[in-house]
Formats: sequence, C-alpha cells, structure tokens
Amino acid sequence: MKLKEFAKKVGLSPTTVSRALSGYPEVSETTRARVAEAAMRLGYSPNVNAVRLKTGRAGAIGVVMGRAGEFHFAEFMAGMAERLVAEETDILVIPMADPNHEDEMQLYRRLVESRRVDAIIVHSPKPNDERIALLHELGMPFLVHGRSAIDVPHAWLDIDNEAAIKRATSHLIDLGHRRIAMINGRPGATYALHRDSGYRMALQSHGIEPDAQLIANGNFTDELGFRFARSFLEQPNPPTAFVAGSMMTALGVYRAVRSLGMQIGRDVSVIAHDDVFPYLTADNMVPSLSATRSSMRAAGTRCADLVLQLLSGRSPLEIHELWPVELILRESTGPARPSSP
Amino acid sequence: MKLKEFAKKVGLSPTTVSRALSGYPEVSETTRARVAEAAMRLGYSPNVNAVRLKTGRAGAIGVVMGRAGEFHFAEFMAGMAERLVAEETDILVIPMADPNHEDEMQLYRRLVESRRVDAIIVHSPKPNDERIALLHELGMPFLVHGRSAIDVPHAWLDIDNEAAIKRATSHLIDLGHRRIAMINGRPGATYALHRDSGYRMALQSHGIEPDAQLIANGNFTDELGFRFARSFLEQPNPPTAFVAGSMMTALGVYRAVRSLGMQIGRDVSVIAHDDVFPYLTADNMVPSLSATRSSMRAAGTRCADLVLQLLSGRSPLEIHELWPVELILRESTGPARPSSP
Repeated sequence: MKLKEFAKKVGLSPTTVSRALSGYPEVSETTRARVAEAAMRLGYSPNVNAVRLKTGRAGAIGVVMGRAGEFHFAEFMAGMAERLVAEETDILVIPMADPNHEDEMQLYRRLVESRRVDAIIVHSPKPNDERIALLHELGMPFLVHGRSAIDVPHAWLDIDNEAAIKRATSHLIDLGHRRIAMINGRPGATYALHRDSGYRMALQSHGIEPDAQLIANGNFTDELGFRFARSFLEQPNPPTAFVAGSMMTALGVYRAVRSLGMQIGRDVSVIAHDDVFPYLTADNMVPSLSATRSSMRAAGTRCADLVLQLLSGRSPLEIHELWPVELILRESTGPARPSSP
Repeated sequence: MKLKEFAKKVGLSPTTVSRALSGYPEVSETTRARVAEAAMRLGYSPNVNAVRLKTGRAGAIGVVMGRAGEFHFAEFMAGMAERLVAEETDILVIPMADPNHEDEMQLYRRLVESRRVDAIIVHSPKPNDERIALLHELGMPFLVHGRSAIDVPHAWLDIDNEAAIKRATSHLIDLGHRRIAMINGRPGATYALHRDSGYRMALQSHGIEPDAQLIANGNFTDELGFRFARSFLEQPNPPTAFVAGSMMTALGVYRAVRSLGMQIGRDVSVIAHDDVFPYLTADNMVPSLSATRSSMRAAGTRCADLVLQLLSGRSPLEIHELWPVELILRESTGPARPSSP
C-alpha cells in the first residue's frame, strides 16, 4: 500500500500521516496512536515500503565506520555507490567509537537483529576475526574486504599486499639499497601483517636482516609519515629508501626528506602504496611517486557486486578474489648512492 | 520481541529465522512463508527492532551521495559519526547517479516514503532548491548544510563563504595584487555563488573590474586546479595571485606555478579554502598555504546535533547557524612584485 492510499483510508493528509509515523512533534499523541493502530490493522508498514516488505529485503548493505581511515572509506563507498545506484540498494553506515572489543561485537549483533541491512561488509579483518564468526553464526550474509585466517567459511575480496610489498622492497634492493625503512599501517589487521611479511621476505631472500629500528606502524597520515621518517633519517645509520603504507604517509616522508636538505629520488628513494585517490595522485607529486597501485574505488564497486551475488544465492565459498597489485616506477626511486665513510 | 524469543515461538533456530526473513537462499520457500506468517501474527517485525517500532523511529539520518566531492563528504560523515555514536542513530547513504533533476526528486520522495530515515541532510543547496520544497511538503524533518534562498521554512547550517572569500581577495589586493584569478567550485550551488560574490565585492570595492578571463568553475581536483592555473598563467596578462576553492585545487595551482619555473609566495600568491582534512594540511604544504579555514568535520558533528534537536521537537525556524571563517596567513602569500614592462 502506498502512503497516499493509506492516508486516504485513515482520512488524513499524507503529510500528517507521514509526520505521525516519523514521530514528528507537531502531531498530537492521539493522532499518532490512531495512525499507528490503522497501520497495524491495514498492514501498512511505517518503516519499509511495500516492495521491501514483499521481498523481505531491507534494501541496504551495512558498513561500520571507525574513526580512522575515513578517506579510504570514502573511496570505497563511492565505488559501492557506483554499483548500487541502479539497484535500489543503499549503504547503512554505522558509526563506531574507539574500537572496544565487546562493544563492537554488540554493535554487529544489534545490527543483524535490527533487520535494517541485507548484508554487511567487514573491513580491515584480523587473522582471527570474531566478527566473521559472529555473522556466520547469525546467518547474516556478509563479505570480507581483506582476508582472515579464521576457520569459518566466508566470502572475501583482497588485494595481494604481500606480493606487492615484496616486489616493491625487492626493487629497492635491486637498486642497491640495503637500509630500507618500512612505515606500515596500524598493527593487528591482516593487510598490515601481509605487508610486513612481504617486506621481510624480500629482505631475507637477499640476505638482509630486518632492523626493528627501521620499522614503524601507525595511522596513514602525513603527520605520522613525517615523524617516523624524520626519526629514521636522524639515526646514526639512516635508511636510503622507504616503503610507505599510503599516499598520505608518502607526503610526510617527502616533507621530512626535504626538511633535512635531501632530495627524493636521489638521496632517498620512496615507494608508497597508492589506493588511487582522485584528489591526490602519484603522478602529480613532485617528484612523481613510484607506487604499488590498486584502486580502492574499484574494490568498492566489486564488493558491492559480490554482495548482490551473495544475495542472489551464490555461495560464499565461491567468492574468493585476490587482486594482483601493480608496481609503477616513477621519479621517486633511484639507485643507492655510494655511502660516505 | 527479540529474535531469540520469536524463534522459540516459531520452533526454529534464530539462525534459520534470521535467514528466512532476510531472503537467504538456503531457506526453503515453505519455511520462509511460515516464518513470515508467524511474524505478522505475533507482531514480530522482520525489518525493525522492537525499540524502533515502539518509538516510530527508523534510527537513521539520510544523506544522498553524488559522484563528486567524496572527500568532503567523508569528512562530513566522520563528523556526524562522532555525534551519533552514542545515539543508536546511523547514517543511511543513498547513492545517486549523475544528477538528473527528475530522478533526484523521485529519489528523495521514495526515501521519505520508505520510512527508513527519521531526517535528511541536504547538501550543496541551490538558491531555489526544490528538494527543500519537497521535503517540507512531505513533512520529513530535514536540515540544509549550506543555504538556499527558497521561500520555505528550513533549518540550516552554513559557513560564511561570501565574507571569507571577500576577505581573502581583499588581503591579496592589500598586498598590491590586481590580477587575481578565482578557481571556484561547480556552478549552481549557493556556496559557489556566495564565493563568487565575495570575490567580486572585494575587487569592485577597490575599483578593479572582474575579468572573466581569470574566473573558472569546476570540481575540486588537483587536475583541474593545474589546468586552470596553467591556462591563466600562459595568458598575455597573467594573474599574480589565485583564490582557490579547495586544498586539492591548491595542489594543482602549486604544481602549475612550479612547472612554469615560478615560485609560490614570491612570483605568485595563493589563498585556498581549507576544509581541514586530517591527511592534507595547509601547514604542511611547501611553502605552507595561506587559507580560509572551516572544519568540514566540525560541521558534520554540529549538523548531526541539530538534526537530533529537530527530532526532539525544536523548530526548524530556530535553527539558522552561520559560521564565521578564519583567514590564516602563511608563506604562500606575499606582496605583488613590480611587473616587468
């Protein structure tokens, strides 16, 4: 039943009905109760439209947004939106405060029970991610953006972080670099572990022992990139190259190198991971930035597509996509200079 | 009634009930029908939880996301999330394809009728914005982020774009600049009109006639900033200063100036509008960027707060907030150099 039709049956204007059902304060409690009763009796749903009632679908995909990483999140969502725009399916963003384990589980549980989403996309999974176990147990369709080693069947899409960073680090070694710093993301997430692993594998396969003094973890901001790079470069035995976790981190590294009177691509080489932001491009940095590249937006589009497939009955077990990552060389990488004695 | 309780009454596991109600394909049509019937009979809502049914609230605020401007959008949403995290209120993001007037109106209308949001935030309003008229007519609580001259009562929060750009332009004139270029946002939105007006007011009050050859409109990307700045600087009578609409635009202007062998702050002055992104800061640019500053995140937090006030019964007529904008001078602005003959 449409709003107009229902309003006619109740003998009120659609505006009043609408206001009554959404708890708008201008409508009296009596009218609100009358409308609510009629809605119940006539089967008019105050909360979902007729199509959704019929299909049993909420018409939305849920994503939980923490405080960090909003710029990645925005690109991912823009990608999802590109796929969902023709599907009458929306994105329900659930705000989350600082991650506190129990609260987070509770939040996912409530989200499932509220029936406001048909599926959930889980971001930044950990190797043993309890959110995955919970969603599986509750029977909620879900897709993991990233990977988890947890022994619960789940659909996932990830990029090959390990191979990407291994390749980037190996390339720097091939250029003669031996002191290579690594500025990684926040510890704990699988992607950060994979990148760490790729970095170590490259070093060790060339007989170089990883040096804890050259490894840092933290949020992807230019502020942290700057601070880590400065402190590394001020060590007695500084790095000659950097692997940076994001474009923002790279901005900070560039600034730190410049602030010490050195030149990117000549004194210090940099390779960063580029999620392909429309507003900050590796090509446009000065000097242009060598990068491992994978579009966060494309991942969002594909994840939305895979969720729609899940909802159409495709088995989660069939949905395991590992995307290769390109390494694109530009001006920020060059041969290691012979070290002064 | 909780899922668990309902499942017990139907004699099925919560998982099966949950799957049945969300249309999960593993559940047979017979079971699904049985669960749907019981839900109807027992008053268990498959789509909203008990609290929300009781209050008549959907527990979400709606925002429509177009394809452009995702990075502003993300900051705004992160700000909203800060306020909403303790409120059990989520953000429903409705993807929209390229803005086509009729579709857009239809999208807002359907959103209201679906009862999936308690309020809507309208972004980038136009002087005569029909979305505002529509939402008012439908009785949906809403807040406008920005302003509209439309003769319909509405709550709004805006920053003082006109005063900000007037002040920035006046400062450049005080420094001796006469050829000042303006790279504005996409035409049509009130904020772009206000900025244009501030720019023209400053010029005209100093007896300078605005030159259409120095005014451009477009999306806030470094690519467009670069292209506009290059084309202006290659004119026979180039500008000596720029007012840039965003941080991203400023990145492009910086690049264009450098690519022509000139120096920011000496040969060409730049003031940009800074929405205060955590990952790209005016302080950290080289040279540091003079900017009109207003936090998009703070606006998101306050807009969420004002929407909650609307839902608690505060009149939209009382909610009109105009935020002043700071002008912060850094290294990218300097006195105009005497022009060569």
